[in-house]
Amino acid sequence: MADVWDAYRDELEGVEDQVRKNLDSSVTLVNTVAAHILNSGGKRIRPLLLILCARLCGYRATEHHVLASLVEYIHTATLLHDDVVDDADIRRGRQTARKVWGNQISILVGDYLYSKAICHIVRFRSQAINEVLSEACRKMAEGEVLQLYYNGNPQIIESEYVRIVENKTAGLIAAACRMGAIIGGGTPEQQAALFQFGEHIGIAFQVADDTLDYAANGEHLGKSLGQDLRQGKATLPLLHLLQHCSEQDRQMIKDRMETRSLTDAELLRIVTLMQDFGSIAYAMDRARQFVAAATKDLSIFEDSSPRRALAVVADYMVNRDR
Amino acid sequence: MADVWDAYRDELEGVEDQVRKNLDSSVTLVNTVAAHILNSGGKRIRPLLLILCARLCGYRATEHHVLASLVEYIHTATLLHDDVVDDADIRRGRQTARKVWGNQISILVGDYLYSKAICHIVRFRSQAINEVLSEACRKMAEGEVLQLYYNGNPQIIESEYVRIVENKTAGLIAAACRMGAIIGGGTPEQQAALFQFGEHIGIAFQVADDTLDYAANGEHLGKSLGQDLRQGKATLPLLHLLQHCSEQDRQMIKDRMETRSLTDAELLRIVTLMQDFGSIAYAMDRARQFVAAATKDLSIFEDSSPRRALAVVADYMVNRDR
Repeated sequence: MADVWDAYRDELEGVEDQVRKNLDSSVTLVNTVAAHILNSGGKRIRPLLLILCARLCGYRATEHHVLASLVEYIHTATLLHDDVVDDADIRRGRQTARKVWGNQISILVGDYLYSKAICHIVRFRSQAINEVLSEACRKMAEGEVLQLYYNGNPQIIESEYVRIVENKTAGLIAAACRMGAIIGGGTPEQQAALFQFGEHIGIAFQVADDTLDYAANGEHLGKSLGQDLRQGKATLPLLHLLQHCSEQDRQMIKDRMETRSLTDAELLRIVTLMQDFGSIAYAMDRARQFVAAATKDLSIFEDSSPRRALAVVADYMVNRDR
Repeated sequence: MADVWDAYRDELEGVEDQVRKNLDSSVTLVNTVAAHILNSGGKRIRPLLLILCARLCGYRATEHHVLASLVEYIHTATLLHDDVVDDADIRRGRQTARKVWGNQISILVGDYLYSKAICHIVRFRSQAINEVLSEACRKMAEGEVLQLYYNGNPQIIESEYVRIVENKTAGLIAAACRMGAIIGGGTPEQQAALFQFGEHIGIAFQVADDTLDYAANGEHLGKSLGQDLRQGKATLPLLHLLQHCSEQDRQMIKDRMETRSLTDAELLRIVTLMQDFGSIAYAMDRARQFVAAATKDLSIFEDSSPRRALAVVADYMVNRDR
């Protein structure tokens, strides 16, 4: 993956220029808060995917840097709202905007970044781009509500879990891929293939992320693990465990989900049970299946540097630190 | 105004049909929460304005009902977020969505309604409509952040207060008017005039609303008055009073703004001072000036039933109960 970052460093620098350039609100507090989260070390996966898909379809200009920066704006807007919804204090090792400036500012600057992005997107005068992006935003909001609806409920079935993940995470990633294909002049078939590629790696990304929340190695065990359970979220490894563990452990887990609290001893027990019952392996395997499907989506394209890079990004979804 | 509601009852019923029709999320909780606030007795001022402006420009079809319903969706999305930001328990005499379902749901359903509206708006394939609406949304978010920035601060000058009001309230009303003109096939001059008309009545609407927050009559005095001050918001009548009252009263008001608390005795004193110093009259007079400017904006149009209705709506902004 380091090679991919390296090969597309100039392109991603072009995206960063646009991210900075658009922080031009006459209300300076908006810029301060937006910069805090936009410059907090996000990996710019969505912009990278948009760039790679545009290049894969033969795009030669640099307008896609603007488009990529706007997708990052929308992603950032959702993070600002997510952190309020999740009561999160820390993101990427830094205090969240809501922790520094409060929930109110976080909500409103999220609204600002979203509407600012829409303002710029419509200037591309592309009906296809308008439709893809607005549809992705609608799906994200639906996915988030659905997730909240199931909060504290361990009864959720796997297909419903995948539906949440598809909406809340994969939708925008798939939209980024399709937008790259659109601006790159890809055929309808190519656009559809890259959209599906994005959906598959988006689901893989979230499933892996949810699994890493329980994947202990010595130094990370402790407060940084088990956050989803503490927030009442039943994710794939936990759903697997709930189907296989004893009634007593199931009751303990349900109880912890409801009360949204977890001692280190309980966390250690859950992580150990997950290893014993193969829950971590099961969930990571599911994630890898989505990566495999994504790699297959690329098969309609001839071999090329961006196609190889996309395959690397797909693998990276399940082979990364959090 | 009752005559206007009456004359356009069928048109507004068409808008209601669209409002209901679009509540079609596969996540039923989204529909429930959205219906709660959409059916809470809002006056549909923005849809009405859009309809009137479309008719004024000679529009003959019914597509504007869809457009009008989407403006109401966006307005509703901002209300859901406003109620979270303001910690509001009651809106239009009913419990707020955040009070019934919590802040998290309110934030996310607000996001949903906004993105759902954008999804539908782009289907009109009108660059002008896309630009007007997205720009209005951006301005609203900026206005809300600016308002929050000044929260608890009594030093704000009148022009800055007007800037907040213009952004947070007048922007969407002006956009509704212009969208009506666009769909109605109005000339650029007519579009600009109706946009300005909307800005003027939008400012008048908010200034009057802010003034009514202190305009006591026997039955309303009490908990329902002084909400803005309790939320730390310095509005026009209060800004006027602060410039004219004694140092001791000024200190008391500043103190109440900071602590966001107000006894009935303090409220009564402030309202009485406002009447003594003419603060209520001053603010209502400013609102009336904006209505007068709005009426003048209509002068490029020949006399017609929708033009007369728009003039009535303009007057209604300053002659209404809250």
